[in-house]
This record gives sequence, structure tokens and C-alpha cells, in this order.
Amino acid sequence: MGRSNKVSTAVIRRLPRYYRYLTDLHKKGVTRISSSALGKSMGLTASQIRQDLSCFGEFGQQGYGYNVATLREEVAEIMGIHRGNTAVVVGVGNLGHALLENFPFQLYGFQVKMAFDVSPDVVGRVIHTNGCELMVRPVEQISSYVKEEQISVGVITVPKQVAQETANLLVEAGVSGIWNFTNLELVVPEQLAVVESVHFSDSLLALSYMINPREEEDS
Amino acid sequence: MGRSNKVSTAVIRRLPRYYRYLTDLHKKGVTRISSSALGKSMGLTASQIRQDLSCFGEFGQQGYGYNVATLREEVAEIMGIHRGNTAVVVGVGNLGHALLENFPFQLYGFQVKMAFDVSPDVVGRVIHTNGCELMVRPVEQISSYVKEEQISVGVITVPKQVAQETANLLVEAGVSGIWNFTNLELVVPEQLAVVESVHFSDSLLALSYMINPREEEDS
Repeated sequence: MGRSNKVSTAVIRRLPRYYRYLTDLHKKGVTRISSSALGKSMGLTASQIRQDLSCFGEFGQQGYGYNVATLREEVAEIMGIHRGNTAVVVGVGNLGHALLENFPFQLYGFQVKMAFDVSPDVVGRVIHTNGCELMVRPVEQISSYVKEEQISVGVITVPKQVAQETANLLVEAGVSGIWNFTNLELVVPEQLAVVESVHFSDSLLALSYMINPREEEDS
Repeated sequence: MGRSNKVSTAVIRRLPRYYRYLTDLHKKGVTRISSSALGKSMGLTASQIRQDLSCFGEFGQQGYGYNVATLREEVAEIMGIHRGNTAVVVGVGNLGHALLENFPFQLYGFQVKMAFDVSPDVVGRVIHTNGCELMVRPVEQISSYVKEEQISVGVITVPKQVAQETANLLVEAGVSGIWNFTNLELVVPEQLAVVESVHFSDSLLALSYMINPREEEDS
């Protein structure tokens, strides 16, 4: 059977977590794990785990659990880690810089091919990223570069005032994904590309809720 | 009725999104919205919305929808935006710098009171954050500072090798929340503090999945 096209967002959101936990187990030398043990460490039920993974085919054997290395590889495959995805980073301020220098893109199957900025102070600077060096180019070259190199993803770390136009430019040039760090809801034509946003604010507000003292409100 | 203590993680995760959408509507001058219209813009059903919000009390009126400004304020209140939360940032590398200079902590009810680093090159530097200036202090001062100022949250933007010890230090000094940017699962005593992590990798892998061509796999 082919992969179902109707995998829910919740399942998609959990796949990277499965991968993270399985990578951890793998590193610790664990070779086999039951759905209930995996569920326990992830805060899910065994049947939730079995149901999630059943969206993608048959994994594991009743009563024997999952082979950690195999399942990890399968999840990697499902997420497209081995597809040779490429990315460009637009906006080499503090955050762009941090991602380029510290985020291990290649661990997740992405090669960052180029970075772009508007500032003459930044253009031409050499950045060390994932063991390579690249020289920041002016934003005017985004379109031709993305087209030529058939880049898959544009990482947007520009000020929010220019975020939407940057997204438009990248999508017109042919990227199929936008990784958005601007806390703005970017709109792109659905049939051309998807936007995935890292909303720092959502995370901080969830934390704010969780540290709130839970007093009674009708006291 | 007091607030239920059993609000599910999924609902907690959606609260910041409600706030984001309501803030947007508010800015656009929308004063009233039905649960189905709100749901549509957020990709949820009307009954999902009503169910989520019913965890916290009675909002809106059957047939009249929600008052946007009021509901926004209520959600802000629930999340603790008006509690006067405080934070310190530990690790003023590129990412710490980016957060301090660009992330509008105060919009989400947090005041960043201090930043700490180990590097002699960074300690003593003046950082502009949320309209104020602060001078980076050495990490040796974290404990006494956090205790004295009764800081609520520690933001961890240190290299992952020292992330867990930084978390321990902060929790021992009395923070009730850790905002973790290290892509490491930090463990802290449950009764003392909560950890909220921004996992860049989960987000990138979800994007990787979404841009994957959905071909049949048994072709």
C-alpha cells in the first residue's frame, strides 16, 4: 500500500519527536523497545504509538516491540531526511547567524547552500556553517540562485516588515518550503509551497501558563 | 467555579495561538467573531473552539459569538501575561543575543532583568533589550541574582554540553520555569519547575515531511 495522504497534523508533529527519542535510545545502545515503553518516555499511550506508526505501514511485531535502529531509519525515511534537501538563509542578523553557525542542518538532511542579506556590512562576510564556508550574497541574487540551484527551502530570518515579500520572492523562485522565524503568519500559494513557523512567542506563553500558580479563582 | 487543574497539553498549546489570532483580529478592528469563523481561520472546528475555551469558564454567548477584545484579555489573563514575570538569559552567543535584542519579551508579560555569560569577552558588554540596557554578568553571579530578584524563568541559550548544569543551577536558585533552546531534553524536579523547549529540529523535520513529494511507495 502507498502512504496515506491523510496523515493528521498531530501525527506529523509527533514524527520528529519519535525521531528524537529513537535517536536517543539508539545512542544509549537500546536495540529493542515496546510501544508501551516508548509511549511512557514520550508521554503517550502504547495504542497511540501503534496508531501513529500504522499511518505509514507495518512496523514492529506484536509482542516483540520495535527494533530501534530500524524504526529510527524508517521514521527518517518518512520525514525525507535522505532526500538531499537544500536551503538558503535570508537575513544574516543575530538569529540568522546563530542558525548558520550552530544549528546542525545536515543532521536533519538539509544542506545550507547560501545566505543572503541586504546590509553592505554583512554581504561578503564569510560564515562557517556545518563544516563549510560560505560568503553572504546580496538579496538581489536570491531569485537567480534559488532557481539555478533548485533550492528546496528558504529560511526567513529577516525583520518582519520584509518577511512576506521575502517569502513571495523565494516561492516565485521555486522553493517548496519556507522556514519562518518572524512570528508573522506568512501566506503563500498552497499549491506551490508550505510555511512552517517557529513561533517563539507561543512557546514562551505556554511556559507562562505552566508556571502560573493554579489558585482557585472564586476564592 | 475554580479553574480546572486538568487542562490538556493540547489545549495549553492552542492558547497562545488563540491569543495570536485574537490580537490580529483586534488590530484589524474586528470586534466580534463567531466560534466557527475563529475556527476556520485557525484550522479548527467551532465545537473544538467552544470546548477548548470551556476549560476556563464561560465565554461568548450562544448566537452572538465572542467579543474579540474581551476574549483576548481573558486568554492573556489565563496565560499569566499580567503576572509580572521576570527572566534572565544565560548564554549571550548569537542566539542569546538575537533573543535579547529582537524578541519582544514584554509583549508576552516578561521582563528580562539580566543576562549571563562565561566569556570574558562578553561579560561587561552592554545589551539593548526591550528598550532598556543591561550589562552582561559572569555566570558565577546567576545564583545570587536569581535568588535576590526572585526571577521566574531562566532562558537557556548555552552550548548543550553545559545545558543541564545551567538548568540545575537556575532551578536551585528558585526559577519555576526553564525556556530551553538547546535541543536537549533537560530534566528538572517536577515539583520545582517546568521546562519548555524550542526544538528547532522538530520544526525543520516537520517541514521536511511536508515538502516531500507524496508519491506511491509501492510503484
